[in-house]
Amino acid sequence: MIQENTRFLIVGLGLIGGSYAMGLKKNGYHVDAIEINQLSIDYAIKHNIIDRGSTFDIDYIKEADIIISGLYPNMTVDWITTYQKYFKPGALITDVSSVKTGVVEPIQKIIRRDVEFISSHPMAGKEVSGVKFADDSIFHIANFIILPTESNTKEAVATMRQFAEILGFSNISELTVAQHDEMIGFVSHLTHAIAVSLMNTNDNTHLVEYTGDSFRDLTRIAKINENLWSEVFFLNKENLIREIDDFIQEVNHLKATLEQDDVEGLKELFIQSTARRKLFDR
Amino acid sequence: MIQENTRFLIVGLGLIGGSYAMGLKKNGYHVDAIEINQLSIDYAIKHNIIDRGSTFDIDYIKEADIIISGLYPNMTVDWITTYQKYFKPGALITDVSSVKTGVVEPIQKIIRRDVEFISSHPMAGKEVSGVKFADDSIFHIANFIILPTESNTKEAVATMRQFAEILGFSNISELTVAQHDEMIGFVSHLTHAIAVSLMNTNDNTHLVEYTGDSFRDLTRIAKINENLWSEVFFLNKENLIREIDDFIQEVNHLKATLEQDDVEGLKELFIQSTARRKLFDR
Repeated sequence: MIQENTRFLIVGLGLIGGSYAMGLKKNGYHVDAIEINQLSIDYAIKHNIIDRGSTFDIDYIKEADIIISGLYPNMTVDWITTYQKYFKPGALITDVSSVKTGVVEPIQKIIRRDVEFISSHPMAGKEVSGVKFADDSIFHIANFIILPTESNTKEAVATMRQFAEILGFSNISELTVAQHDEMIGFVSHLTHAIAVSLMNTNDNTHLVEYTGDSFRDLTRIAKINENLWSEVFFLNKENLIREIDDFIQEVNHLKATLEQDDVEGLKELFIQSTARRKLFDR
Repeated sequence: MIQENTRFLIVGLGLIGGSYAMGLKKNGYHVDAIEINQLSIDYAIKHNIIDRGSTFDIDYIKEADIIISGLYPNMTVDWITTYQKYFKPGALITDVSSVKTGVVEPIQKIIRRDVEFISSHPMAGKEVSGVKFADDSIFHIANFIILPTESNTKEAVATMRQFAEILGFSNISELTVAQHDEMIGFVSHLTHAIAVSLMNTNDNTHLVEYTGDSFRDLTRIAKINENLWSEVFFLNKENLIREIDDFIQEVNHLKATLEQDDVEGLKELFIQSTARRKLFDR
């Protein structure tokens, strides 16, 4: 479990890594960071987001009780594979990846027996990236998902719950990798695919002055980091393709009601979407 | 032009009609309302949104200098056709419909020579309806579109501009019916079709606890009045079907990059959507 003297290491000080650091340090914990960009380290130290930062320091790794990879999914696998030899015996390692297929299994297959990798996903974010936008309050309206597998101990799950509580997540839940990636494929990856496609449908930039909130809301997430998101989409490709197919089928269903002058059929679609959406109101 | 003693009549005291009334009355104008629901009239009088209200009163029609139909598109055509015999000579009539095909032409074909119908579209709204939610501040960040045709006078256009200025619209523009319906087909009708279809894709209600802002933003407008919107969709059917086809083609393009493991192709889609979306930031 997390104690007063538990030492945290954040690897990759981006928006999520930086926000984790900020929240942990506010709660009095020691937080080190390994981050490739020296400017991000300088910023984080100046703003009291971390205790120590370095582009690379083996001692940080050796001293850490809990290591959080804030790196992209594939980089997380690589980093743990390469540097696990320095992990402190008993250390707990987690990640922040929004996709778990191709991340959890490869890591748990190679991870040392005397440390433990337990995956988790903070469902929080902003349309901007980098430690400059770090803000631990984004967790206070967010869901923290823990993904225990057969390799994980009950204690690690309890520690991750404690971790999420310290950071003030509003909800904590547990899912399997398969459940998680199917769910996130729908609520996040499909929605991003739709927003990107809507934005790309026409060169609609001449419509700027006419667009209201509907269009802006639907396309807000079309501003997307192409390196991170292409990785995420390909890792969750199987779920995403199936969900795109389901969605297109539904759009075609709506189109068919128009083509067939099926007024009642169209109304039924509206009634169903309205009833379902009401459940999602906060 | 609108003068101090100009008398307004709002027909249909819903969200937009009510918000118009509220804004006009705040600016000192006399506002009458004809509204089928007595409760709406009572509410509007009690809250000082209108001067007089009735479920039907020929004198209101006879005395009005400017008549605004806040009714649904097809009802607007019917109401004007039926009651134009009572219009004051020189009266100006407008509407609030979000679709203009099937509205402007039929009305201008039958309208009396001594009055003038000029169509307009306040691009404002809320996810709720009814005079209880009337709020003229929704216009202050909204676009007011005037749709002059060959039947319209310059003076009528100027009066509509003055009307929009009084209500505090942040932007006023002029479009033809064809331009308007193509534009609104894309920025509003297609976006609603997408939101409704996403909401209907799966019975996703069990995902409530996992959904973040992305999904909520994309489906906010899936709560939709089935009677109004089925009318709107069918009136703009031709544009909407074409735009649905374009959109599906774009979604399939994204899907193809996944199926073909075309990482660079997917990144290009993200880069394009990001560049375009940035132009829409307020």
